[in-house]
Amino acid sequence: MKDFIYYAPTEVVFGRESEDKTADEVKKYGGHKVLVHYGGQSARRSGLLDKVCHQLNESGIEVVELGGVVPNPRLSKVREGIALARREGVDFILAVGGGSVIDSAKAIAYGAVYDGDVWDFYLHRAEAVACLPVGVVLTIPAAGSEMSEASVVTNEDGDIKLGYSSDLSRPRFAIMNPERTFTLPAWQTAAGVTDIMMHIMERYFTHDDDMTLTTEIAEGILRTMKDSVFAVLKNPSDYRHRAQIMWGGSVAHNGLTGCGVLDDWATHQLEHELSGMFDVTHGAGLAAVWPSWARYVYRENVSRFVRFAVKVMGVENDFSDPEGTALRGIEAMERFYRAIGMPVNIHELIGREVTDEEIHEMVRKCSRGYKTTQGQFKVLDTNDMEAIYKMAR
Amino acid sequence: MKDFIYYAPTEVVFGRESEDKTADEVKKYGGHKVLVHYGGQSARRSGLLDKVCHQLNESGIEVVELGGVVPNPRLSKVREGIALARREGVDFILAVGGGSVIDSAKAIAYGAVYDGDVWDFYLHRAEAVACLPVGVVLTIPAAGSEMSEASVVTNEDGDIKLGYSSDLSRPRFAIMNPERTFTLPAWQTAAGVTDIMMHIMERYFTHDDDMTLTTEIAEGILRTMKDSVFAVLKNPSDYRHRAQIMWGGSVAHNGLTGCGVLDDWATHQLEHELSGMFDVTHGAGLAAVWPSWARYVYRENVSRFVRFAVKVMGVENDFSDPEGTALRGIEAMERFYRAIGMPVNIHELIGREVTDEEIHEMVRKCSRGYKTTQGQFKVLDTNDMEAIYKMAR
Repeated sequence: MKDFIYYAPTEVVFGRESEDKTADEVKKYGGHKVLVHYGGQSARRSGLLDKVCHQLNESGIEVVELGGVVPNPRLSKVREGIALARREGVDFILAVGGGSVIDSAKAIAYGAVYDGDVWDFYLHRAEAVACLPVGVVLTIPAAGSEMSEASVVTNEDGDIKLGYSSDLSRPRFAIMNPERTFTLPAWQTAAGVTDIMMHIMERYFTHDDDMTLTTEIAEGILRTMKDSVFAVLKNPSDYRHRAQIMWGGSVAHNGLTGCGVLDDWATHQLEHELSGMFDVTHGAGLAAVWPSWARYVYRENVSRFVRFAVKVMGVENDFSDPEGTALRGIEAMERFYRAIGMPVNIHELIGREVTDEEIHEMVRKCSRGYKTTQGQFKVLDTNDMEAIYKMAR
Repeated sequence: MKDFIYYAPTEVVFGRESEDKTADEVKKYGGHKVLVHYGGQSARRSGLLDKVCHQLNESGIEVVELGGVVPNPRLSKVREGIALARREGVDFILAVGGGSVIDSAKAIAYGAVYDGDVWDFYLHRAEAVACLPVGVVLTIPAAGSEMSEASVVTNEDGDIKLGYSSDLSRPRFAIMNPERTFTLPAWQTAAGVTDIMMHIMERYFTHDDDMTLTTEIAEGILRTMKDSVFAVLKNPSDYRHRAQIMWGGSVAHNGLTGCGVLDDWATHQLEHELSGMFDVTHGAGLAAVWPSWARYVYRENVSRFVRFAVKVMGVENDFSDPEGTALRGIEAMERFYRAIGMPVNIHELIGREVTDEEIHEMVRKCSRGYKTTQGQFKVLDTNDMEAIYKMAR
């Protein structure tokens, strides 16, 4: 059993009309002049952005707006935000959106109080020592960034997608109204749930089952996500199940599911290269890679994959054939991905066969960061990465 | 489904030798002169107290010691601590112990920066607006006070046990080394687990099952506690299972198991009067009351008690007889209490029959606080309270 630190100080304000409390929360955490950061026009069209900005103004809080964040948020937008935040002297960054907007907001928050280039942090050439406070009005449950210390940014100059983590950037508050997710398209809903489940699965596959409590919590969240996604795909305005997914996205990634167990994250890293190169939806990329990763590594701990098959996927345990049970669990997950409209290989993800050259390029990027291997359940070297990409092609 | 706020900012430092990080944590959260608060001599005998104080001194942090906290912590000791904290000008309260010590520390932390009498808060005659920072080195997993906003204090003048809750008192950090619980006697271990499970069960029994995610998490923790307590009663030095219990105690009561569901707390309040009057162990008092509470209220939502029976207690679901299944779940819980050495009625708890006069006195106290009813799953008036005490006698 691994020692651990659990620290998730974000105040979650969850429920109907919870966005009405935005101004109070900003004030509570010391904001006077706020950079409101958002993505495309959906936040404007839904009326949420105007509602929030109006409320902030009415409360005597100055507002500076910066939209245009895209999925796989870009370093150029982050730099634009940093320049704006400095010029305007904002003291708080409010993200209105999903993971991309929050990650971009965190990067701006680091950069606004750093003399060097913010990309230094993502290259692990510097450690952040300060950060503007960040708050969130969440509209897309997926990334879990609203309670996490992590952010991932794509540098367009070379299509490099890198992450940086520091407790300094954990949002002070996260406002979550499940009603605000009723209009999420089916594709984004399914990709979001895939990401949420993957945040748990990256920590679930471990070499022992010492931390039963974490395992039980992980399985409970996974089962709930699996049930709730079908409910909301059928009825997008199902408050109850939208709520499970929204809260599930936060507890999946706020540290709770990692207490005392391994952190693998190989699937995430393999996917980062895919979305860095092909600009695909992160959750869909995870679904395209995971089955191949799982088949490549399951022999490291067959009984853990058996437990996953039985407790999460509802596969019958064939005690005479643990490997078969483990593999049937992976197959069941694959069927689940298909059933919610996700791809299960790279071909389905990008619409064509990935070339050997592209695989080599992804392997190169995947092994040239601040560490040259990926994963901990099985430590993957470049040969392993290539093999998994080829299995997934 | 209820709206909720989730806020659990305590930094948990969990693992072997984690107490070595105490001084760093105190500094991180701004402590320069610390009141080290503890209970009896076990903290001294184990060497923990000296280790911690020595470490604080070595780090240039001034130390003032105050021991002598007893179970069901007394207002007189709190007042002694407040006077000492003011006289010495301490800026941080460090609790080394279990729930009683932490609750006493929180009360001192409120009182040290309040002009009036600290008991005002517990009488709900005043709201705290400030509080010294509190840190914890946990030695007894049970109360969950190390991550909670709650504290309970007994005023010896009238044997009145009252609670007060405010986010201001949530510990800044909680250091948890499961090895430090190896020497906990069987009785205290079992009473602790009973308290932990009860913190979940007070929120589990609700009128709907809208918040499946919370339900799944609750059931997972309950199952783990049930398994782990037998393991540590058999082998007190079982690190793995001591760890489940220690972490289980925190997540049971840091708000996670209450997200979106009812808060009942009737069993706790009925027990508070018992331990206020007879000075019994809190966890044991809960075990003595809960079966009677459950039999008195289960018809409010039979299917919820059926789910509890099946998912937590492992009772076979007799679909033709939901009431029977529900009752068998309560019986199974009773057998569990007996198996770990807990009483299941007041007679077993205090060693004699409780008198009608004593019951009337407890009912009187239980209904004269800041509200005259108790509970939410079923709102209990004084007749209900009397009936439950009599069932439990």
